[in-house]
Amino acid sequence: MYGLIGKFTAAEGKRDELIGHLLEGLRDMPGCLSYIVASDPVAPETIWVTEAWTDEDSHKASLSLPSVQDAIRKARPIIAGMESIAQTQPVGGHGLSSVG
Amino acid sequence: MYGLIGKFTAAEGKRDELIGHLLEGLRDMPGCLSYIVASDPVAPETIWVTEAWTDEDSHKASLSLPSVQDAIRKARPIIAGMESIAQTQPVGGHGLSSVG
Repeated sequence: MYGLIGKFTAAEGKRDELIGHLLEGLRDMPGCLSYIVASDPVAPETIWVTEAWTDEDSHKASLSLPSVQDAIRKARPIIAGMESIAQTQPVGGHGLSSVG
Repeated sequence: MYGLIGKFTAAEGKRDELIGHLLEGLRDMPGCLSYIVASDPVAPETIWVTEAWTDEDSHKASLSLPSVQDAIRKARPIIAGMESIAQTQPVGGHGLSSVG
């Protein structure tokens, strides 16, 4: 498995809109086992995204899906920053969906 | 929802054993929507844990479950460090199980 922990910073006042684009883009992504979008209760512009994929190739391929391309296009103008916290190798747990 | 992103450091050479205890402890935790355990491909002692719960109380209550208590007891001697990266408010996504 392949995992990502990332931190987005939205443009001021745009966090909810950015979350909307992220959630919209993540439907029907083959190989996606988990993709959870969370806001930060303390930092008003921060969004945390944690992902688990069957493999790194599935993640890369998802970036070319029309739905994801569309979400990226809408999201880009309101993203102030992106930080990769970690690339991981998920080994198990609860909530790993088998439906991509 | 309530979320946690945490980083564990295992005692040298004990990561797989620690991962085993973490996975063992997480069965049947009421209110747990997602709990994914991942190793770090670069740092040999590092484990990433990302969690989503219905609410903070469910997370707190889980720490008193016999299975979790047992896992904590076994894990403690081989944990070299724990770091909370973030407490979050998950808002949606893919892979949020409704079975606790």
